[in-house]
Amino acid sequence: MSESILSIESVSEYVGSRPALSSLVDAKSLTVQEVGDGNLNQVFICTDSSGARLVLKQALPYVRLVGPDWPMSEDRAAREAHTITEHSRLSAANVCALIEYDADRYVLALEDLTDHDVLRTRLNAGGPFGDVFEQMGRYVADVAFGTSWLGLGEEQFRLAAAAAVNSELCKLTEDVVFTEPYLGADRNSWRPQIDSLVRSLQADSEWVGAAMTMKRRFLTRQEALLHGDLHTGSIFIRGSAAPVSAKAFDSEFAFYGPVGYDLGLLWANIVAAASRAAVLDEPDRAASLLSHIATSWSAFESRMRDLWPERWEPSAYPDVMLSQRLTDILDDSWGFAGCEASRRIIGLAKLSDIETLDDEQYARAASAVLRIGRTALVSRGTLPIDEHIDAMHTELRL
Amino acid sequence: MSESILSIESVSEYVGSRPALSSLVDAKSLTVQEVGDGNLNQVFICTDSSGARLVLKQALPYVRLVGPDWPMSEDRAAREAHTITEHSRLSAANVCALIEYDADRYVLALEDLTDHDVLRTRLNAGGPFGDVFEQMGRYVADVAFGTSWLGLGEEQFRLAAAAAVNSELCKLTEDVVFTEPYLGADRNSWRPQIDSLVRSLQADSEWVGAAMTMKRRFLTRQEALLHGDLHTGSIFIRGSAAPVSAKAFDSEFAFYGPVGYDLGLLWANIVAAASRAAVLDEPDRAASLLSHIATSWSAFESRMRDLWPERWEPSAYPDVMLSQRLTDILDDSWGFAGCEASRRIIGLAKLSDIETLDDEQYARAASAVLRIGRTALVSRGTLPIDEHIDAMHTELRL
Repeated sequence: MSESILSIESVSEYVGSRPALSSLVDAKSLTVQEVGDGNLNQVFICTDSSGARLVLKQALPYVRLVGPDWPMSEDRAAREAHTITEHSRLSAANVCALIEYDADRYVLALEDLTDHDVLRTRLNAGGPFGDVFEQMGRYVADVAFGTSWLGLGEEQFRLAAAAAVNSELCKLTEDVVFTEPYLGADRNSWRPQIDSLVRSLQADSEWVGAAMTMKRRFLTRQEALLHGDLHTGSIFIRGSAAPVSAKAFDSEFAFYGPVGYDLGLLWANIVAAASRAAVLDEPDRAASLLSHIATSWSAFESRMRDLWPERWEPSAYPDVMLSQRLTDILDDSWGFAGCEASRRIIGLAKLSDIETLDDEQYARAASAVLRIGRTALVSRGTLPIDEHIDAMHTELRL
Repeated sequence: MSESILSIESVSEYVGSRPALSSLVDAKSLTVQEVGDGNLNQVFICTDSSGARLVLKQALPYVRLVGPDWPMSEDRAAREAHTITEHSRLSAANVCALIEYDADRYVLALEDLTDHDVLRTRLNAGGPFGDVFEQMGRYVADVAFGTSWLGLGEEQFRLAAAAAVNSELCKLTEDVVFTEPYLGADRNSWRPQIDSLVRSLQADSEWVGAAMTMKRRFLTRQEALLHGDLHTGSIFIRGSAAPVSAKAFDSEFAFYGPVGYDLGLLWANIVAAASRAAVLDEPDRAASLLSHIATSWSAFESRMRDLWPERWEPSAYPDVMLSQRLTDILDDSWGFAGCEASRRIIGLAKLSDIETLDDEQYARAASAVLRIGRTALVSRGTLPIDEHIDAMHTELRL
């Protein structure tokens, strides 16, 4: 394997050996930069003397951040390549495009988006976000429709779900999102300022029980080929006013699961960004961010309704199934948002939105994220969206 | 393919060519009988001069009852072989054993159970049923536990579910169980005596909506490797007093789906048998049959509780998840029972329990099955089991 692992030195030769890549950039004049912020993979940005660029992302047989002590199959690159292909077919404008996938060396060649910002970075800096959340709502709808039985027919849907099985990365999600924050784990951590709140939650059977309900849903429900990790660090944005350019990337966690998981992650990360804004004395920005939970849902719902007449075998799917499904997805979205909010404060993988705050700000923001997460988890679909958002305003004193 | 298709004439030579079979019966002295009641497959009972027996079941590339005009992949034989193997590992006493699977010719060699009766035949004749339903409840529990993440761990569970995909036969179930009875189809039929009831149900948005909820659950929930067609025609029984010998067979519809589907089919078929008994003026027998819905659930639930301490990674699965899961399975079981009851009266595949009745008896029994099915579908988990059964007594005037 080791001779297959790309390095800054070997990237030019690699690009030169791949016709699909050397036709896009001049391999002989490449400047190669390794982007250090990937946790799992190697990422190289390749720029030629004319300024043409492409990105190479290579999966290693372990977690890059930890090293060979945490082995992880490179098959995740194949999962991501497959997912980009399927998602691009359905929502081309909202997905970072795949140029080529090299199955022998687990390398994805991707379109260059260095003129974009990572959405989380943009939000942490207080920057504008335009209609990025509405576009993501429509992207989730396009995928939820197009990769489900509604877009594929029942037989192809079941085959596609089986082919997209991603048990290793799902297990990681099951551990860090659905188990450890509630039941305890050595790799959990939080600052002393919120210790009593965390301990009271972990002793709260309603909160734990609701999280376990969501864990079982994550394990057993296959509805569509999810992105699987749709937080604000997996979205690129360019521009400031609507329509911005908004593109999802890093879909190696993709699998057939409950659609609300993608929306829920997005919403919990909006809550984190809003909590940051609130404790940085930007209440209007916080309120604006929170309002995009509702508008992203509206965008999702509208797109689902627009696509409905195009469903496979319409006579077998009466309209009542659309409203039932939307109700269930909304319930799931809140539940998964609650899990994501909780695990991002308590569990292994933290958010820079919160972790870069000073202790006093952290205490307020992290507590608010946890309390909002509890309401999302426990009340889920029983509270209308407006009341969920009102409760967030109360927690954040907006 | 055609030279691979077994006939009464070629079975002896086939058995002689398979060491695993010729060691069990004397191929040279075989008497071969084709059993005509399989809808999908060929079934041969092979008896040698000493009386030793085995059964061969061969999948054809079409539905046997219809012929090549209804093509169906022989892969269903592989699905059944895999399912018997997995189910036997978990519940050996309650599964018709597989001697050998011939993947080249899609032939399952099965243990001879000609000393058993098909449960439906036994019930139609008014015969005893002992503890067959409790044993089936325990069988469903053994499988529900052992083939789920609780028995396999999360990663292996997802891989096993993907490997067991059975899209063609699931599509058939989706059509005949979850679509046609509610939304209409040319191949539906019923006698004029119940015409107004059927039409009022098909105009009843609550009944149709509940059926569509169950259809979506069938499509999207993967919990365990179900039998997939666990009606009383898929169960053998021998003996009359508990413990009887009770063995499930014909599992080619197996797939990873919602556990309540297996229980629900069983319950709806108990309702049909009880309705037959009631209109044949055997109210005590009808009441006794219905009581076994409750006892089969109790047997299922007890076995699930007994197995719970053996779950994979107990610390990741607190006890609350067991009670949540049981609640959801019970809701599913009623819903699927309601679909099975409805489709067996209205849809393509009928029940001899009901169809062999005269018109007056048919009208009473079929109406009762439909009304009981509606309550099961619409009220599902909101009614306690006892109240479901009380409502059945009222419908059947017991």
